[in-house]
Amino acid sequence: MDPYRLGLLGHGTVGRGVVDLLHRTSEECGRRTGRHLEVTAIAVGDPTRPRALPEGCAARITGDPLEICRDPAIDLVVELVGGIDAPREWIRAALEAGKDVVTANKAVLATHGEELFELARDHDCRLLFEASVAAAIPVIQVLQHGLPAGPIDRLLGILNGTSNRILGRLEGGMPFTEALAEAQRDGFAEADPTLDLSGWDAGHKLALLTRLVLGTSVPLDALKVEGIERIEPIDLAFGARHHWCLKSIAELRRRPEGISLRVAPTWIADNSELAAVHDEYNAVLLEAETFGTLVLQGKGAGGLPTAGSVVADILRAARGEGRTPATPRQELRILEPGSSPSRHYVRFRAKDRPGVLARIAGALAEEGVSIASVEQPEPVDPSAVPVHLITHPVPTTVLDAALSRLGPNGILSEDPLRIRIDALPSPLPSTRVDEGPGATKGATPCPA
Amino acid sequence: MDPYRLGLLGHGTVGRGVVDLLHRTSEECGRRTGRHLEVTAIAVGDPTRPRALPEGCAARITGDPLEICRDPAIDLVVELVGGIDAPREWIRAALEAGKDVVTANKAVLATHGEELFELARDHDCRLLFEASVAAAIPVIQVLQHGLPAGPIDRLLGILNGTSNRILGRLEGGMPFTEALAEAQRDGFAEADPTLDLSGWDAGHKLALLTRLVLGTSVPLDALKVEGIERIEPIDLAFGARHHWCLKSIAELRRRPEGISLRVAPTWIADNSELAAVHDEYNAVLLEAETFGTLVLQGKGAGGLPTAGSVVADILRAARGEGRTPATPRQELRILEPGSSPSRHYVRFRAKDRPGVLARIAGALAEEGVSIASVEQPEPVDPSAVPVHLITHPVPTTVLDAALSRLGPNGILSEDPLRIRIDALPSPLPSTRVDEGPGATKGATPCPA
Repeated sequence: MDPYRLGLLGHGTVGRGVVDLLHRTSEECGRRTGRHLEVTAIAVGDPTRPRALPEGCAARITGDPLEICRDPAIDLVVELVGGIDAPREWIRAALEAGKDVVTANKAVLATHGEELFELARDHDCRLLFEASVAAAIPVIQVLQHGLPAGPIDRLLGILNGTSNRILGRLEGGMPFTEALAEAQRDGFAEADPTLDLSGWDAGHKLALLTRLVLGTSVPLDALKVEGIERIEPIDLAFGARHHWCLKSIAELRRRPEGISLRVAPTWIADNSELAAVHDEYNAVLLEAETFGTLVLQGKGAGGLPTAGSVVADILRAARGEGRTPATPRQELRILEPGSSPSRHYVRFRAKDRPGVLARIAGALAEEGVSIASVEQPEPVDPSAVPVHLITHPVPTTVLDAALSRLGPNGILSEDPLRIRIDALPSPLPSTRVDEGPGATKGATPCPA
Repeated sequence: MDPYRLGLLGHGTVGRGVVDLLHRTSEECGRRTGRHLEVTAIAVGDPTRPRALPEGCAARITGDPLEICRDPAIDLVVELVGGIDAPREWIRAALEAGKDVVTANKAVLATHGEELFELARDHDCRLLFEASVAAAIPVIQVLQHGLPAGPIDRLLGILNGTSNRILGRLEGGMPFTEALAEAQRDGFAEADPTLDLSGWDAGHKLALLTRLVLGTSVPLDALKVEGIERIEPIDLAFGARHHWCLKSIAELRRRPEGISLRVAPTWIADNSELAAVHDEYNAVLLEAETFGTLVLQGKGAGGLPTAGSVVADILRAARGEGRTPATPRQELRILEPGSSPSRHYVRFRAKDRPGVLARIAGALAEEGVSIASVEQPEPVDPSAVPVHLITHPVPTTVLDAALSRLGPNGILSEDPLRIRIDALPSPLPSTRVDEGPGATKGATPCPA
């Protein structure tokens, strides 16, 4: 059989990893696909710069990605450049020329996915993107082909390794700025970390997973996204005393009344599956009536894990697998985020004057927010005493409206921080994040 | 396109679940495979008994499985009867007639896998078995097709839900006999629980996974298998004080000097991935240079999760995917189990006489076993004082030889219990089960 010919766009860390991995495992790749995989061409920014290629790799180097996308000899184009507009054109050109495409680029798919997937179907080509979400976790393959038919009711994800690493450092007592600087120094956070910290990197990935779970795309503005920028070690320390763990959770939930989508820091039980996801690891938890709860956990970033998932996609395409099935257009009802009741944690700093707590509790009660417990540690700085509250179940929207009226107004010395609680109060062996709220324990009931 | 015609052998909980699930999701199954899936025939023990089938299912009921395996109209045979000799004949017949086969039967594959997989390759048919290991976890698909090429260096599995559930109950302080009775009452343990408790159920599953990881089979007697029968709540309580969690771990390890395979109760860090696997859940952890650590966790038993994995296999086959690639015969060196050094936990009960601890420590030291710490709680029964030891790293074989010489001999009132420790002493955020032994903390250094 003819070799399966690959054209790479990009020869950075991931691109070099892909070429090396294909070279080192060439015999196994051939055995698993029934074809010899050959890297035929590589498009780079500066084609005059000498490139170290593995022995025996005779790939031609070009400065023109479109030339590769249109080369009739090439079977599959691997897009590893990043960006949105240019990759969109390259992927379009490759699909229109009848080639399979593998990409690690979530931005182009989150933005132009509808158009590109439709083009792939029209030309009976594969458009594979395992590496674009949770690098080393084969979650795309599992969602597309690993599960029985039937609806998935819930997806929870830890999809941004940078946030997860920083939250872990805060848990150890490190201040936020230091944890961020460390992540940048170790190469886990960008110089501009806004997308990671704001939750929007995870939001884009949730949008891609949502398309697979629902069979249709949702507009990005249907997502409610909150970042981790205001979390402090004192919050994590409070959570630890309640056997909670703080994670930035991306969530898709399908209820009879509609779909809700959100990314937000969330308290989960410290013995639940996602609590064991440390450092730059990612995880995806799926729930369905048929299979119950399924959790996939692995490295969410890094050159080699990403290159590995790109190679797994290349092998699928070379085996002739991985076509996206057509899915019917569905009418989805997207719910207002934060409309279902949950317990919440609220932390603020107040001026230490008698009666402050009673005034705050009274003000919240007026808005329909009932406080389950309060903790007010011995103040270090009497002008900014941290107060930790746990509410009884209340919709986030109701709580936010009540909190916005407390604001910095003479009582509070800063805007309150509010985090949803998705954990039972006490650590039971069988506690899982899908369990609902219960009564509070381990904190003082509010006297107000 | 013609419908894809299925013949089921067996119509128990799983069989009925498969028929129902295919019926309920028929539209989606058709969309995902491009074919209509039709249950054409079902073989049952008593064909005269009336069977409730979903509306529109016109499957013929027969008492003769071989008739289905030879029926030229049938494309795929689903074997859900269990056992070894009869299913072997049915699967042989189906493959020889050119049919795909899906089975949930690990016993027949652990025993006759070589023969049956070779037959499938010779006839260019699929032999799929996702449901036979860790019911709802798509670990077979991920191992066969979800990962890049390249060796997997380590596989750790929690593969027996019954053992895992019982260990969880012991952790909560429940005595072993009560925990076992509860598992039997709730339908999680067989009336004869020997296979589950002895570790051999997990051993058979490890053998199937090993074939996929190594590309070749290993004899069952290459596995070192230990059960959980002698674990007591006092052991779990000791572990909890050290931030350890006890799991029955199935392990495949590939080292430059050879392969080791074992199933045994093992201490792991209580914040590691596998520590969060509760109740009847199963998990598989994979390690490779390319992707790092990957963990899959889900329901390990139950009619519906098992039926779901059978349906996922049926969909793969109907899509024309899932052929087992030929793998070259490899010469594997199987290492003597327990030959690499680890820290170990040892618990025994001694007669409370002065100098007992010094005599035991001295006797172990003579055999080259060095004790890192000792804990001897205030005795309730002075004729059987529990003593908990932690050793410095030592090969299990050396420790076992030393312990066998202590035996019940006047000092000890029972055989010692010995458990390998695969955890760092203190709970660090980044502690994972792959990390090696270190110094002991939190227990009294041995005075002997």
